Amino acid sequence: MNKVQRLFEIDPWKIRTTHLDKENRRLQESLTSIGNGYMGMRGNFEESYSGIHHQGTYLAGIWFPDKTRVGWWKNGYPEYFGKVINAMDFLQMKLYVNDHEIDLAVDELTDFDLELNMENGVLTRSFVVTIDDAKVRFTFQRFLSIVKKELAVIQLTAESLSGTAHLKVVSKLDNNVQNVDSNYEEMFWFEKNRGHQEDISFLTTQTVPNNFGIEQFSVTGAMKHLSSSTGLQQDAKLEVAESFSYELKANQPIQLEKRVVILTSRDVPEAEQRETATALLNEYDASYEDLLAEQNSAWADRWALADVLINGDDEAQQGIRFNIFQLFSTYYGEDQRLNIGPKGFTGEKYGGATYWDTEAYAVPMYLGIADPDVTKNLLKYRHNQLAEAQHNARQQGLKGALYPMVTFTGIECHNEWEITFEEIHRNGTIAHAIYNYTTYTGDEEYIQKEGLEVLTEIARFWADRVHFSKRQQKYMIHGVTGPNEYENNINNNWYTNYIASWVLSYTLENYNKYQAQATVTITPEEQAKWQDIIDRMYYPTDEELGIFVQHDTFLDKDLMPTSELDPAERPLNQHWSWDKILRSCFIKQADVLQGIYYFGDQFTLEEKRKNFEFYEPMTVHESSLSASVHSILAAELGLTDKSMEMYQRTARLDLDNYNNDTDDGLHITSMTGSWLAIVHGFAQMKTSTGELSFAPILPKEWENYSFHVNYRGRLLAVAVNQKEVTIDLKDGPALAMMLYGKEITLENTLTVSLKQEESHV
Amino acid sequence: MNKVQRLFEIDPWKIRTTHLDKENRRLQESLTSIGNGYMGMRGNFEESYSGIHHQGTYLAGIWFPDKTRVGWWKNGYPEYFGKVINAMDFLQMKLYVNDHEIDLAVDELTDFDLELNMENGVLTRSFVVTIDDAKVRFTFQRFLSIVKKELAVIQLTAESLSGTAHLKVVSKLDNNVQNVDSNYEEMFWFEKNRGHQEDISFLTTQTVPNNFGIEQFSVTGAMKHLSSSTGLQQDAKLEVAESFSYELKANQPIQLEKRVVILTSRDVPEAEQRETATALLNEYDASYEDLLAEQNSAWADRWALADVLINGDDEAQQGIRFNIFQLFSTYYGEDQRLNIGPKGFTGEKYGGATYWDTEAYAVPMYLGIADPDVTKNLLKYRHNQLAEAQHNARQQGLKGALYPMVTFTGIECHNEWEITFEEIHRNGTIAHAIYNYTTYTGDEEYIQKEGLEVLTEIARFWADRVHFSKRQQKYMIHGVTGPNEYENNINNNWYTNYIASWVLSYTLENYNKYQAQATVTITPEEQAKWQDIIDRMYYPTDEELGIFVQHDTFLDKDLMPTSELDPAERPLNQHWSWDKILRSCFIKQADVLQGIYYFGDQFTLEEKRKNFEFYEPMTVHESSLSASVHSILAAELGLTDKSMEMYQRTARLDLDNYNNDTDDGLHITSMTGSWLAIVHGFAQMKTSTGELSFAPILPKEWENYSFHVNYRGRLLAVAVNQKEVTIDLKDGPALAMMLYGKEITLENTLTVSLKQEESHV
Repeated sequence: MNKVQRLFEIDPWKIRTTHLDKENRRLQESLTSIGNGYMGMRGNFEESYSGIHHQGTYLAGIWFPDKTRVGWWKNGYPEYFGKVINAMDFLQMKLYVNDHEIDLAVDELTDFDLELNMENGVLTRSFVVTIDDAKVRFTFQRFLSIVKKELAVIQLTAESLSGTAHLKVVSKLDNNVQNVDSNYEEMFWFEKNRGHQEDISFLTTQTVPNNFGIEQFSVTGAMKHLSSSTGLQQDAKLEVAESFSYELKANQPIQLEKRVVILTSRDVPEAEQRETATALLNEYDASYEDLLAEQNSAWADRWALADVLINGDDEAQQGIRFNIFQLFSTYYGEDQRLNIGPKGFTGEKYGGATYWDTEAYAVPMYLGIADPDVTKNLLKYRHNQLAEAQHNARQQGLKGALYPMVTFTGIECHNEWEITFEEIHRNGTIAHAIYNYTTYTGDEEYIQKEGLEVLTEIARFWADRVHFSKRQQKYMIHGVTGPNEYENNINNNWYTNYIASWVLSYTLENYNKYQAQATVTITPEEQAKWQDIIDRMYYPTDEELGIFVQHDTFLDKDLMPTSELDPAERPLNQHWSWDKILRSCFIKQADVLQGIYYFGDQFTLEEKRKNFEFYEPMTVHESSLSASVHSILAAELGLTDKSMEMYQRTARLDLDNYNNDTDDGLHITSMTGSWLAIVHGFAQMKTSTGELSFAPILPKEWENYSFHVNYRGRLLAVAVNQKEVTIDLKDGPALAMMLYGKEITLENTLTVSLKQEESHV
Repeated sequence: MNKVQRLFEIDPWKIRTTHLDKENRRLQESLTSIGNGYMGMRGNFEESYSGIHHQGTYLAGIWFPDKTRVGWWKNGYPEYFGKVINAMDFLQMKLYVNDHEIDLAVDELTDFDLELNMENGVLTRSFVVTIDDAKVRFTFQRFLSIVKKELAVIQLTAESLSGTAHLKVVSKLDNNVQNVDSNYEEMFWFEKNRGHQEDISFLTTQTVPNNFGIEQFSVTGAMKHLSSSTGLQQDAKLEVAESFSYELKANQPIQLEKRVVILTSRDVPEAEQRETATALLNEYDASYEDLLAEQNSAWADRWALADVLINGDDEAQQGIRFNIFQLFSTYYGEDQRLNIGPKGFTGEKYGGATYWDTEAYAVPMYLGIADPDVTKNLLKYRHNQLAEAQHNARQQGLKGALYPMVTFTGIECHNEWEITFEEIHRNGTIAHAIYNYTTYTGDEEYIQKEGLEVLTEIARFWADRVHFSKRQQKYMIHGVTGPNEYENNINNNWYTNYIASWVLSYTLENYNKYQAQATVTITPEEQAKWQDIIDRMYYPTDEELGIFVQHDTFLDKDLMPTSELDPAERPLNQHWSWDKILRSCFIKQADVLQGIYYFGDQFTLEEKRKNFEFYEPMTVHESSLSASVHSILAAELGLTDKSMEMYQRTARLDLDNYNNDTDDGLHITSMTGSWLAIVHGFAQMKTSTGELSFAPILPKEWENYSFHVNYRGRLLAVAVNQKEVTIDLKDGPALAMMLYGKEITLENTLTVSLKQEESHV
């Protein structure tokens, strides 16, 4: 196991520290990110900070098509790399005490306190500095409203604890921002307009032109302050500023509140942005306390449905709440044009906004804790991009549709051949999400038309992508990267072959079922061809070991468990060169096991056990997406300790910086993992047969846990303690379901004894 | 077969056209490149040309470490990508007739004539334009002296054929140059100094700073004109200019000669460059005619040794002369710090200066046509970079030494993981060149010390890079790219496994032989381990087909001959996406066959035939390095037509633009291919056993061919006609050798009958 790195205290609702960790400031910033689905930012300081940090403010759907950067161009690469770009920094409130600029990287400070309240998304920070003979406490509190999405509120309180001092605050909207990954410090923004009207300053900027026909986004920031400005600053390029001066006297705190409205051309045409922003700032005129109360209430509604309560393990409790908090801060389903970016608003690594993570990891959770329309919108997002997915397939000379690895628009914008061109299993997951949605909700309307359109095109892709090996008389899929990205360009990845064949079957099955309603036609020849592929698909297996083999030559490797690894060399991806990783047996994330998780009802417990026991010991879990699947399977196999270890890893991946990369930003799309580990894992919720079932276990470390799920118009509360499982039908009609493998009918509350672990083995 | 594209006339000594092909100007430029080993340039026009073209002047050993550009960083990548950079354009002579600037992209012209004389490296161009009522013929002639390497000479003749006109010529040294592959139009040069003194103008520039500790190169260009300057031009940044005015009267030609000296900080410190350049320009004061005579004579010496005479086939004759001409223009062995860049002075694609091509394709030819010291210097070049090769191995976490894929300094500066990290067979070729040198020259001094140092470290690399497959009880090499770069990250590439094992054997053998002299120690444990690897190395083979299998799963592919390909889709690398290429069976260049060529004495003719017949039909020869090996093997197998087809392809690869990429520059390192195809192929010269042998055949299209080779202090002239083979010992003592498999002693001239093809089958 890697060492963990924990910067914040254990607390069920708070992310708090009293230590300004300059060595790990970037990690602190990532972990104190906030967002409201519309915009968000890393936990940057309002005042200047000259130490190592990563300034980052991001706006949903605002991006730039950067020139593809490759050493050597490969035919088929997309023209541009779509990147999340750093947007206008609207936090800035520079502090000057007696003309000395406060900079915590340099100044002596005491009483540092930094706290993110997950109950309401409020970030509070205070510290005391002594300048000349004045000892001043500064407190910043900020939140991004989840009720008024365009609104950010920052409240500064400054109080002299002793002595007097002159305080100047310079508050800015600053678009002099760059991405940390820029090669040549290129600027993505230029100024369109700026001004000051009554008590509002505004700045309008636009993304620079591009050669790829991608729209240029305009963004207007407007700020007003609840205090009189003492002057407009000399404005630099791409920034506007106002300054405020105060004479601080002991124990006479002053307050300065900054309210910012951010509008983008995604919603408001540039020409109307200034006017609209002014109107919104004037409209959002409630007091700070009232805005905060509204924020508290909105978050409380979210928590009422989604919170998972764990007693007896505050680390576990904090972890899952952090995950749910950050996930919802990124995406709560309000805007159908958006998807769930892998870093959300917490960093810019990876580029793109949409990955297969959404379908693989987010859909199963949103099905459980949100309105079915949220998931349906995620499916429609892909349906809307079917033409672009067809374009992607053509780029590779193939029929059908290939959903992108990374995208903003549906067009692939990622450029590593071994991923872009070869990690095609993603296409299967897009289909599998349709299956998940349909079996979970029972809504068959989607699959009959839009769903079948997507499925058919994905099936056509697979039918064209396989080849027939004359020697083996089998269909094969060569040259892929499976979910385990620590192997590239492999042949006959069991998972990929399996899901490809499954897509063909599932599409044929539904086409036959809904042919009358379907908007697509699959010719008899095509159907026959697909059936032949299904019948003669090659699956690498090893009879002796009783396992599905990850790919053709996996068993020729030098196989060894991760326990033989030098802990100093982990995570491997930060210590080993890529080729060494590739030829090693070590697995980044569930691969064969991903298939066993997806298609759990198609394998025996014995098959599951043998594969789990073979692969898990070689798995390094260096993908944030790995631990949850292992936790779920381990729970099913009664391997409660392993399941708990994996739960811990998924729940506290970022809080404990397991993969030593959270400084770049949080792993947003894997934030669902802890919820899945509890609900699909410990509680063994299954829905794939069209019938809801549970078979809960309780980790020995926990006193109890409980959660809610939506299911087909019902709201269920599930509680598991050391003796009993209680399922409470909080809303909706009675439900026939399974509990511990037995048919039951849930009418109001049902309580049964907790089954012992052994019984599930 | 692809279509060929032929822009120049067939002529045994000239590359000539009377057509300004604006559509293919870049291709024309590549094919009319000249160089003198010290500097060189594409066939750019002296005057302005606004059409599509690629301005390119390059100086040997002058490069820049550019920031590595990758989509996604892989651990182990080098920090920078070393690139050949466009250097000071010293050709420029802008032409203005009655203030109209001549630009052949726009102006009407007649009597265009462009001719590169391969006998002496002189490029001549003339054309006639009519401006107002004057009809003017311009003739430019230029050469880069191979006697005075710093000197370039350009002679302009302008003559009015009718009418009068005012002619202004603006002659420049211009360093406002960029690379065509720049992403953000970055400049690699800045100005250090400029001036004019007496009749010399000079400009000193330096490469911009870099973060990688690589020296910044300073370059001074100094020009003088053999005609009085009428004025210094207003100088722009990074350029100096002089202007000359003439009144052209009918039939009264004027001449303006421009002489340029280029010095670099590789040879002359920046502070001394101006003075040294002035001195050289004054010293090189011979007349144009005398300078040209000196040039003619020096080239004549080169040709006397290296020319291959082919009668009956001018296409073949022109092809091989073009190859030898361009190869020598790039490298003639004078400067031990240099190596043979893949584009020479004809383009900037690929970056780096040194590839394994040198050892694989250049060494065998230089052994034959140059002093043994030229080859020894190429070997020493690698020995000098042993520490850097060790660094490269460490970058991958491996012992020993890994010679780079691409380098200027010995440090790897290439960044595609599948090549940089995996195309490690290159390391075997570095060892194989030592073997070639030793068996060819009989000089065993090198291998005893420096050679064994290099061999031992390469052997250590291989011994660490293999792994032991418990399942197969064999040593394997996973995750490589073989010579066929149309497959990546494959397992057990037969060629790589074979050469790795061979290096271990060869090193052990020589260590045992020269242990007394050796400067390295190989422990008994290490020796035992190596022997175990040799004994239990895995080689994929197919008994039924009687072939060595390219890699583990090659035979599972959809195997088909290239004849089934759509000609419109060739070359594949310009039409297929990379993944499609990878999973296809089509082979870019000799892979298994490369091994059979290298180790020709270790396989039976039957093995050679079966492998050739299996692999050649699937080979697309889209590497410039492919055809020569196939030509040689086909000749040995008596497949004369195939051998001739492959000869044609290698000899005229660029002249006929087989791979549709010569517009980027010439394929310099494969320029040896036609010589090898004739000498190793048609003449079947072999040296690997330490005894020289020939077994010539004659393509039916040819009347005869003849060439010279150096061999162990002798000079042999070999002539093959339709009846006889004559070997003439021009210099040196008598030699015991083999001819058609029979021992002979060559004393002066020996003539035997030409053997019929059938006898070699």
